[in-house]
Amino acid sequence: MSEKFVYYFGKKKAEGDAKMKNLLGGKGANLAEMVKIGIPVPPGFTISAEVCKYYYEHGNKYPESLENEVKEAVRLLEEETGKGFGSNERPLLVSVRSGAAISMPGMMDTILNLGLNDETVDGMIKESGNPRFCYDAYRRFLQMFGDVVLKIEHSEFEGALSSIKKEKGVKLDTELDADDMKEVVKRYLEVYSKAGKEFPQDPWKQLWMATDAVFGSWMNERAIKYRALNGIREGELLGTAVNVVAMVFGNTGEDSGTGVAFTRDPNTGEKQFYGEYLPNAQGEDVVAGTRTPFPLTKLQDINPAVYDQLLDIFSKLENHYRDMQDIEFTVEHGVLYLLQTRNGKRTPYASVKIAVDLADEKRISKEEAVMRVTPEHIETLLHPYFTKETMESAELLAKGIAASPGAASGAVAFDPETAEKMAREEGKAVILVRPETSPEDIAGMAAAQGILTSTGGKTSHAAVVARGMGKTCIVGCEAVEVDQKTRTMRVNGKTINEGEWISIDGTSGEVFMGKLDSVKPQGLEGPLAKLLGWADEIRKLGIRTNADTPRDAKIAREFGAEGIGLTRTEHMFFQEDRIFAVRQMITSSTREQREKALNKLLPMQEEDFYGIFKAMEGLPVTIRLLDPPLHEFLPKEDEDVKELAEEMGMTYEELKTTVEDLHEFNPMMGFRGCRLAVVYPEIAEMQTKAIIGAALKLVEEGKSVVPEIMIPLIVELEELKFVKSVIVKAADELISKSGLKLDYKVGTMIEVPRAALTADEIAKEAEFFSFGTNDLTQMTYGFSRDDYGKFVGHYMEKGILENDPFQKLDRVGVGQLVKMGTEKGRSSRPDLKVGICGEHGGEPSSVEFCHIVGLNYVSCSPYRVPVARLSAAQAVVKNR
Amino acid sequence: MSEKFVYYFGKKKAEGDAKMKNLLGGKGANLAEMVKIGIPVPPGFTISAEVCKYYYEHGNKYPESLENEVKEAVRLLEEETGKGFGSNERPLLVSVRSGAAISMPGMMDTILNLGLNDETVDGMIKESGNPRFCYDAYRRFLQMFGDVVLKIEHSEFEGALSSIKKEKGVKLDTELDADDMKEVVKRYLEVYSKAGKEFPQDPWKQLWMATDAVFGSWMNERAIKYRALNGIREGELLGTAVNVVAMVFGNTGEDSGTGVAFTRDPNTGEKQFYGEYLPNAQGEDVVAGTRTPFPLTKLQDINPAVYDQLLDIFSKLENHYRDMQDIEFTVEHGVLYLLQTRNGKRTPYASVKIAVDLADEKRISKEEAVMRVTPEHIETLLHPYFTKETMESAELLAKGIAASPGAASGAVAFDPETAEKMAREEGKAVILVRPETSPEDIAGMAAAQGILTSTGGKTSHAAVVARGMGKTCIVGCEAVEVDQKTRTMRVNGKTINEGEWISIDGTSGEVFMGKLDSVKPQGLEGPLAKLLGWADEIRKLGIRTNADTPRDAKIAREFGAEGIGLTRTEHMFFQEDRIFAVRQMITSSTREQREKALNKLLPMQEEDFYGIFKAMEGLPVTIRLLDPPLHEFLPKEDEDVKELAEEMGMTYEELKTTVEDLHEFNPMMGFRGCRLAVVYPEIAEMQTKAIIGAALKLVEEGKSVVPEIMIPLIVELEELKFVKSVIVKAADELISKSGLKLDYKVGTMIEVPRAALTADEIAKEAEFFSFGTNDLTQMTYGFSRDDYGKFVGHYMEKGILENDPFQKLDRVGVGQLVKMGTEKGRSSRPDLKVGICGEHGGEPSSVEFCHIVGLNYVSCSPYRVPVARLSAAQAVVKNR
Repeated sequence: MSEKFVYYFGKKKAEGDAKMKNLLGGKGANLAEMVKIGIPVPPGFTISAEVCKYYYEHGNKYPESLENEVKEAVRLLEEETGKGFGSNERPLLVSVRSGAAISMPGMMDTILNLGLNDETVDGMIKESGNPRFCYDAYRRFLQMFGDVVLKIEHSEFEGALSSIKKEKGVKLDTELDADDMKEVVKRYLEVYSKAGKEFPQDPWKQLWMATDAVFGSWMNERAIKYRALNGIREGELLGTAVNVVAMVFGNTGEDSGTGVAFTRDPNTGEKQFYGEYLPNAQGEDVVAGTRTPFPLTKLQDINPAVYDQLLDIFSKLENHYRDMQDIEFTVEHGVLYLLQTRNGKRTPYASVKIAVDLADEKRISKEEAVMRVTPEHIETLLHPYFTKETMESAELLAKGIAASPGAASGAVAFDPETAEKMAREEGKAVILVRPETSPEDIAGMAAAQGILTSTGGKTSHAAVVARGMGKTCIVGCEAVEVDQKTRTMRVNGKTINEGEWISIDGTSGEVFMGKLDSVKPQGLEGPLAKLLGWADEIRKLGIRTNADTPRDAKIAREFGAEGIGLTRTEHMFFQEDRIFAVRQMITSSTREQREKALNKLLPMQEEDFYGIFKAMEGLPVTIRLLDPPLHEFLPKEDEDVKELAEEMGMTYEELKTTVEDLHEFNPMMGFRGCRLAVVYPEIAEMQTKAIIGAALKLVEEGKSVVPEIMIPLIVELEELKFVKSVIVKAADELISKSGLKLDYKVGTMIEVPRAALTADEIAKEAEFFSFGTNDLTQMTYGFSRDDYGKFVGHYMEKGILENDPFQKLDRVGVGQLVKMGTEKGRSSRPDLKVGICGEHGGEPSSVEFCHIVGLNYVSCSPYRVPVARLSAAQAVVKNR
Repeated sequence: MSEKFVYYFGKKKAEGDAKMKNLLGGKGANLAEMVKIGIPVPPGFTISAEVCKYYYEHGNKYPESLENEVKEAVRLLEEETGKGFGSNERPLLVSVRSGAAISMPGMMDTILNLGLNDETVDGMIKESGNPRFCYDAYRRFLQMFGDVVLKIEHSEFEGALSSIKKEKGVKLDTELDADDMKEVVKRYLEVYSKAGKEFPQDPWKQLWMATDAVFGSWMNERAIKYRALNGIREGELLGTAVNVVAMVFGNTGEDSGTGVAFTRDPNTGEKQFYGEYLPNAQGEDVVAGTRTPFPLTKLQDINPAVYDQLLDIFSKLENHYRDMQDIEFTVEHGVLYLLQTRNGKRTPYASVKIAVDLADEKRISKEEAVMRVTPEHIETLLHPYFTKETMESAELLAKGIAASPGAASGAVAFDPETAEKMAREEGKAVILVRPETSPEDIAGMAAAQGILTSTGGKTSHAAVVARGMGKTCIVGCEAVEVDQKTRTMRVNGKTINEGEWISIDGTSGEVFMGKLDSVKPQGLEGPLAKLLGWADEIRKLGIRTNADTPRDAKIAREFGAEGIGLTRTEHMFFQEDRIFAVRQMITSSTREQREKALNKLLPMQEEDFYGIFKAMEGLPVTIRLLDPPLHEFLPKEDEDVKELAEEMGMTYEELKTTVEDLHEFNPMMGFRGCRLAVVYPEIAEMQTKAIIGAALKLVEEGKSVVPEIMIPLIVELEELKFVKSVIVKAADELISKSGLKLDYKVGTMIEVPRAALTADEIAKEAEFFSFGTNDLTQMTYGFSRDDYGKFVGHYMEKGILENDPFQKLDRVGVGQLVKMGTEKGRSSRPDLKVGICGEHGGEPSSVEFCHIVGLNYVSCSPYRVPVARLSAAQAVVKNR
């Protein structure tokens, strides 16, 4: 706790500065800073946020010395303005505003004109010679003070005002004259009496009551909720400061006015200021919307001197703050005052453009430019989007969880076959709507423009696959009920037939009726490309992508991927021409039968891998062997089982038994991953042949190729040894038969806690590690991704979990295993290449952690590659 | 590698001794040792196991110096026996036998009489004057050598022998005279020719070929399999040694003979030797079973001098080896030779009795006695059992996995209700036969004598619960097919109706037709009690029990439990009078409804806890809050759902939806454990009230009580804080209202990897830890206990897993988390009490690990308590 609680700013001195945001709030710190750099600001003082902390820790009491400090500051103010607080001659009026280190909606609004009472108003009239203006100021103060400090219903004041307007037969406040305004004052004071409240005529009492109200608003419901929603922890901030500033008036005549401005365009980022000006008005008049402000450029005509002064200030502020500023100002009788400056909010695109421009202008370094852009934001630049206007004018049907960004419109299809048919045969844009998706739906998802599910979370199948495909996706939209029988969906009382159009916004999670026009994405051009280029110079982490098709691989390369960190081979198994052979393989009862089925799959898989290798042009490609439980490939519905049984020459009962035998209680911890390869080595053998065969073809064509074969779900060195021996045997035979030269690597996923715990052992055989942090999170927490939705909401609500560990890598627990696994692995193989290929690979905080731990690369879905590039660069700067 | 490969033993010297088992094998080391302590042994020498290792490492070659060493040893033998190897006058004959450090079936059998050929046989005849004996010796040698060394079909020799017997019209070998035997030799040589093999007449060639055969047999299929089955890793043993010993003959007349003996009774452990003697015979004649040997006591009549000499040797050997010995001996013309001595195999009961007796006789220390008994064995002493004879004469139906030891007979019941009805109303002994059991079956299991399931492994529900109840149980008996419709079971072609009797042996896993008589268990009396008393003096670990009922608690206390480490509260929920309220609780849609249902359960739970506290008389009792997923309590079959819906005044559809909503993809990682308490704090509140309420009752009665409330499945400090606050609030309110004094503790299971990884955090709130190593193993390996049966067999077969980690705690991975959790926990709470309550708590190697890591106690099912006590003591001795 400091000894000083009040910080003065004015012509004589500024006791604070911009660095003191925690103590003075953003507003107070910047007012002081502006004084320091010679920008005109009305004088005032800030009661520090420490007082707020003290206030709550001491039963709403203030530190003893506060009163004297405030008195002294007011004395300075009086001296500087030549006015007197409570004076009947030249009364000093002040505004009182809250201001925390982080801008926080919900806290107390501004109180203007504090210091007015029945006597001082007369002094003000004497001085200004403008009774209407003074009564107007008084009634405004009465209204704000009553509303904000004494909690008198706002409507009571509105009622009193409109009754007078009615009596006078006028519509606008401006049509009321001085006497009318005096009457308003009278009636407002009656409102106080009626509400059983007393208006304090004593300016000092006004000031302390207003200060109480500001501190009280720190703990009001809306402010608490805002902090909770924005992840601001109790205790992270001291509290709010209180700014007391001498009033200046923009409504004292045509040579006065008020305005706001951005020093650059917050929408496009163009280097061109952007603002509005309203003559003879206060800021609240602009907000009220009764009069339309001019574009700021008009000020040049009205008051060229002030206009030039403003332009000069813009430049000064940008130079000083080294960022685009959002400014409020007032002109009083031709004299300019800045009331506020802060870094301006901007669209993602503008944020990139401004950062790059500022660096190009040498105002900031490239590194600073890289730090200025929120990585999550740039993904939105790569997808089409609906404008605010479009969405506001559309019919909102429901809101779900935004799972994969973008905007899509299409005809509704309720199953993947229909989606494919509508897309392929009818050439329609389609939105696939399902309760949830399963690997069987892949083809339908690929054919659709977007996917909407009624269940699931951000890491559900639909979400993961959609992100991988770069498709717009909303999940967990519980309002949507699909009725497969009637081929309709019901959403909040509305029924939509298959084939009708809807639109989905994967960034906001909103579902709209009908077809909305979307805006094409900016793509990876211009400033974004430049910024990412700078990021690439800074970052230490390699960036790879998770890609299962040549198309994905190509997109990812365009986005800057330096290799593939994860190719899931199982998605290829679901294609229509393959699933039959896959099912044959699974239902085989002998090794011979199984090999026969596998031999059918071999050329198809080889073709898949050939395409991916080719697309990656010599960059490393990590291919994971078959991972999911086999029953995922089998039909679930009775009818489908019957059909398959017929096709395969089995009885229904036989096949049903096979399907049931494969059922598992906890498939996530069941017969999957390398366990498949241990029991059926012939599967790993076929996949190895396909990988090596494809690679050899490219070698033959004179191309370069770097295959890395990855074994999933390893728990034990002996297990890895066994599967590796199967792979190496199949690979070496093929290579030696070909007479060609081909290097390949065999590595493993580290995704089961035991693998991380015994990584020193496992690294003896593994030539690389890739952390599968999805599964690792599941098992480290014992959270089933498919089921944790049942309770995780309660965990977030009760503050037990700060973040969803599937979205943001848990550094303490899962991260400990990642760190341990990396260190142990390198202790027995110092040059071990270590990456991560879970969903976390594209999440900024997780990427930072990977950098800190010293991984070699992160791998993420194609559209997250730019995010990862930027995050990786920021991680370097942050952890220097 | 030593410089010396051959170790001589004989009158002149013994180069080896009992400590050199690794080098000389058990047989060779003990022969040398016997020479050293003056016990008559035929002279001989041992080729060390290092030669075996060399042999395999050098492409079946021997070290260069070996030949000369063997020659020198044979020269010594010739010198000592006064015979010559290959001599026509007094030929030296030898036996050649394998012998590893661990007795290993499957390796090469003995070759006797090596050194005989067409010429030396004449020399032998000359010397002995007994042509029949000599030709018999020759033909025996031919047969063994041909069979073992040259792999000539055994039946070829048998055929040749029986053709002569046929020709002679006799039945027994003994009825053949010298000429007949000569003819046998002739025909045997023809068998060689016919098989295209040559019999080596050169005794040196015979010796080297036999040596080759011994070393070759080290890697034969049976030996390899034996090692794999018994967990002997390649490289753990050097190999086998070869013993070459001068022949002595027990079949040279009535003053000769052969015998075997145990120095104490291997069945009962009584201090009374036990053996058999057969005059005029070799050991192989006893094995052949054509003549019945006498009890050894008869030797007193036949040859009192030798008998006395033997008794003296028994005593000498026991004194020397300090354990019961298993001996082979031969008397040749009245002279006694010991051919082998080794620690005798014995029944579990005898092992305890002998160890205790030896300690009482001061031959060994109490500590040594404790080390002599295999902990696993003593559990069998606590259960009834079928004798070998009973089982051999019964009709074996099938064999499953022995899941809970004991022997039980009863009428078959196919569902828990029928089992209860048959047991309660008809007073029948019942065996509950099910495909698998679920928590709903508890009452039926309790009513049954034994449980038999067709699926599941050693840690399935049936196995875990049966062990807890001390019921005989066999699981995974795949041959059993239950047909609920016809109320029959089919086993290997046989159909058994409900109500027919079967018997099951939970130690061997065998299922028998009909009712078998079982033998009552020895129980915890006599020598076992004494031994466990000694164990208690030595051990550092506390031993607690997992007990859910006062009955279990009482049994465990009788077995020496010092507290309860785990009371599962959910088992209580399944009782008929409660399940309705439990289901009401689960299907409640409001907190009020839920609390109403919980209020019904409260007095019942309080009664449960009262009984358990009372049974434990002031010992600590750890009670775990509700753990399993809620859907486990709901009915599964459509009919049952209908019934319940009616009872609860819901529609079938409503209830069905609730049931379906609770369905989980991976329930093991789903909505269970403390997650229930986070979402429904009122459940934890009710359970706390029941626990504290019951404890207060006892305090009121002047009894002492130590309740420890345990929160399951914690992953995060904040989660523990939340649930603990609910508990502490409910508990403190109750205590303060009562005006009584009661201390209680709140602690947590550490069963999710993250809890172990963040144990330093968690210990800030947890007053004790209990490792739930079942779940911890599941999540550390990603092995679902319910599903890993699909692949774990392959893992064991392929040697990827040495042990089932659910049976034997995995020290490397899971153990690392246990160690880390303990150390981290104590780093923030130095006096943290740490225990383990998984199934591992009663497994000796796991108990040892808990001792090493420094846990405070292990907790296991009541019948494992004695096992744990002994294991804990052994752990101390082993790790000193």
